[in-house]
Amino acid sequence: MKPLHSLLGTDQLTTAQIESILALARHMDPRRAKQLLRGKRVVLLFYEPSTRTRTSFEFAAQALGATTTLIAASSSSVEKGESLIDTGRTVTALGADVIVMRHPNSGAPYLLSRYVPTSIVNAGDGMHQHPSQALLDALTITNHKKKLTGLRVVIVGDVFHSRVARSNAHLLSKFGAEIIFCGPPDLVPDVAALIAPGVTACHDLNAALRDADVVMSLRVQKERLAGRELGLEEYVEKYQINCERMKLARPDAILMHPGPIIRGSELTSEVADGPQSVVCEQVANGVKIRMAILATVMGASR
Amino acid sequence: MKPLHSLLGTDQLTTAQIESILALARHMDPRRAKQLLRGKRVVLLFYEPSTRTRTSFEFAAQALGATTTLIAASSSSVEKGESLIDTGRTVTALGADVIVMRHPNSGAPYLLSRYVPTSIVNAGDGMHQHPSQALLDALTITNHKKKLTGLRVVIVGDVFHSRVARSNAHLLSKFGAEIIFCGPPDLVPDVAALIAPGVTACHDLNAALRDADVVMSLRVQKERLAGRELGLEEYVEKYQINCERMKLARPDAILMHPGPIIRGSELTSEVADGPQSVVCEQVANGVKIRMAILATVMGASR
Amino acid sequence: MKPLHSLLGTDQLTTAQIESILALARHMDPRRAKQLLRGKRVVLLFYEPSTRTRTSFEFAAQALGATTTLIAASSSSVEKGESLIDTGRTVTALGADVIVMRHPNSGAPYLLSRYVPTSIVNAGDGMHQHPSQALLDALTITNHKKKLTGLRVVIVGDVFHSRVARSNAHLLSKFGAEIIFCGPPDLVPDVAALIAPGVTACHDLNAALRDADVVMSLRVQKERLAGRELGLEEYVEKYQINCERMKLARPDAILMHPGPIIRGSELTSEVADGPQSVVCEQVANGVKIRMAILATVMGASR
Repeated sequence: MKPLHSLLGTDQLTTAQIESILALARHMDPRRAKQLLRGKRVVLLFYEPSTRTRTSFEFAAQALGATTTLIAASSSSVEKGESLIDTGRTVTALGADVIVMRHPNSGAPYLLSRYVPTSIVNAGDGMHQHPSQALLDALTITNHKKKLTGLRVVIVGDVFHSRVARSNAHLLSKFGAEIIFCGPPDLVPDVAALIAPGVTACHDLNAALRDADVVMSLRVQKERLAGRELGLEEYVEKYQINCERMKLARPDAILMHPGPIIRGSELTSEVADGPQSVVCEQVANGVKIRMAILATVMGASR
Repeated sequence: MKPLHSLLGTDQLTTAQIESILALARHMDPRRAKQLLRGKRVVLLFYEPSTRTRTSFEFAAQALGATTTLIAASSSSVEKGESLIDTGRTVTALGADVIVMRHPNSGAPYLLSRYVPTSIVNAGDGMHQHPSQALLDALTITNHKKKLTGLRVVIVGDVFHSRVARSNAHLLSKFGAEIIFCGPPDLVPDVAALIAPGVTACHDLNAALRDADVVMSLRVQKERLAGRELGLEEYVEKYQINCERMKLARPDAILMHPGPIIRGSELTSEVADGPQSVVCEQVANGVKIRMAILATVMGASR
Repeated sequence: MKPLHSLLGTDQLTTAQIESILALARHMDPRRAKQLLRGKRVVLLFYEPSTRTRTSFEFAAQALGATTTLIAASSSSVEKGESLIDTGRTVTALGADVIVMRHPNSGAPYLLSRYVPTSIVNAGDGMHQHPSQALLDALTITNHKKKLTGLRVVIVGDVFHSRVARSNAHLLSKFGAEIIFCGPPDLVPDVAALIAPGVTACHDLNAALRDADVVMSLRVQKERLAGRELGLEEYVEKYQINCERMKLARPDAILMHPGPIIRGSELTSEVADGPQSVVCEQVANGVKIRMAILATVMGASR
């Protein structure tokens, strides 16, 4: 298997690489982990705010014995006009072993990875990729379903702006899952289906949910509906996941959401807190997956 | 003694619980502490900025071997509309062992503690409670006075908005101290005396200070005087603690302040730096008290 | 040799003290350092944002086994009107062993050091001093040049506002280097030459660069040129360091910059990335120097 130097997007991963990370994550226990990364320095370079992803990477790194440092754009040299590449070189010269990076521009981590020898982990770049999220989602799904092949996964919401949807579609497609993007035409354009084999676009939620194994709800931001034909009220009426609609899916279907949840918007409190919801499990799996990712890119997993 | 799962307010504590925390704190040495919390994760969830309380909890946690993570509201999912309860659940799923929480809304930590199994430590909620401050104040007082029973404690300033005043009154009242709230009627309404047995309200500082064992000065914020009958100039004239007024108290009286101090406003530099001031001792005791609190709520004190 | 309690400015250091820090830094390896500062607390009190200096001090402290805490002015009691001295006393009472401090006002760390017993390390005060930068620059220069005595060092740019220029001039002057401040008359006033023996001011870059051993480029901020006779375009034409101009210096001259670099402004990408550039080496040396500084002021270097 090709060693993984950086984790940039799920599209670039082989199924063997994905399975290796998932297998490693299953054996990770944040409270009793071997100190595989003792003395290593993880720099979190965040050009966008984040609670769960940042904290999850921090906990993962610390559980393996690494030290973490946060560089937030709002208090960094970035404001003084330094280029991304120079910031990356500086962080490398300071002694970073891995840079975990979130950036509003799609492709930013790819660019940086071409200029610095340090391992880069993409923690979300614009509307493009969020590979650690797709990997933790795969870990969560495989905890409940025997295999990804043939699974019917419905991803509901603002697919157009969602790096979570993109990263999941690439990953799940590699394993032969059926992926249905569902939402209003403005947020789920028909071309979205071209992203990977096995992906279809659908504007009728009831049809999409029928026989679904996995229902993945995405955040819908009011400000992104502004100026579009559809308002939040109509979105809720047509696309909100509620108990009634969950009944259209398979009885053993699971409900996922990358968080943060806006209750009453993309889903109701009933389903968020219901027996099919695995939202908190996703968060817990996030720490395990990020332990596996950090150990893998730093060559400490063997 | 009932084990303490969360520390929310001093009103809910028994005298046995308070004495237990004080006794534990007296034996805490931040530089040579047993690693009672090795491998534990303390999440600081701060919806309001704070220097001394936050740093004090960080130092306390680290001295006992725990790791700390700060989640500040300004860079968190909160801005994306996530509810407090969902943030708390996420932090719990990430693996937090205790959540130290500051929030502008009174009652917020109480609410959260009903929804998550994680221990919650209230580090200040609105105008309501600040129990670790009252406990460090009790530790400081008992370092100088034989017992709390019968002590005359004068709390001067903006009592109306002060969670420090409220938490101290509840705690001191349980031990039979006499508590005098003193300040202008707008900031010390007569109903304030109803908070706990032994509390009285008084608008005449000279009368209040007579024979005081403890003088506790509170912060007065200019913006809180705006629109009231009393301006800062008149406040200073009537209620500022200065050397002259300290002479009305007992010769061995101590002067306390929760900080940050605005010199020239609620007190003069002369008294702040004078021989009766225990302000720096309060800060140092804060680390010890928070070590004792964290060890107690995590069941590591036995 | 006089022990160093605080590091405030390079002007106050003896050559023996400087050589001692440089010698110690040469033996520091951030990845394999003795835990000289185990259990020590380093508080970073930053009233101005900073990436490289802050992170460099954090990495240095952690490499020696100390714990670090950042207090950034934007979320601190400072906003509540607390005085610098009271903040310093509070940080000391909390248990800080050393305060690393950046402040927009020249002299702030000197003031604080007179009021608290804690060691203070100046990490930049206004337009005044940045001693750890000058020390890392000296480490970098001595890695390439046999000795500082007789070296021709040209410092180009906004000398008037630069604490880097000031700290370097004082340090290099003590060792008998020739220092040429170069830039437009507005940014390099003739009186600048009076700062230390061996310093001259010059407004002709080509003349200044002739036979230079070291070319140190400084940041030029557009907003600082505003209202002056010279615009950015004319600055670039007359004072930008490019390949052509570097040829006027000695063939073995090195190019330095404290960062962050604005490419196309004070220097071209060609020279920033060229064979004479030691910019990344400066960053790496920064961690070693700060390890040596922290060990020295905490008396752990012997």
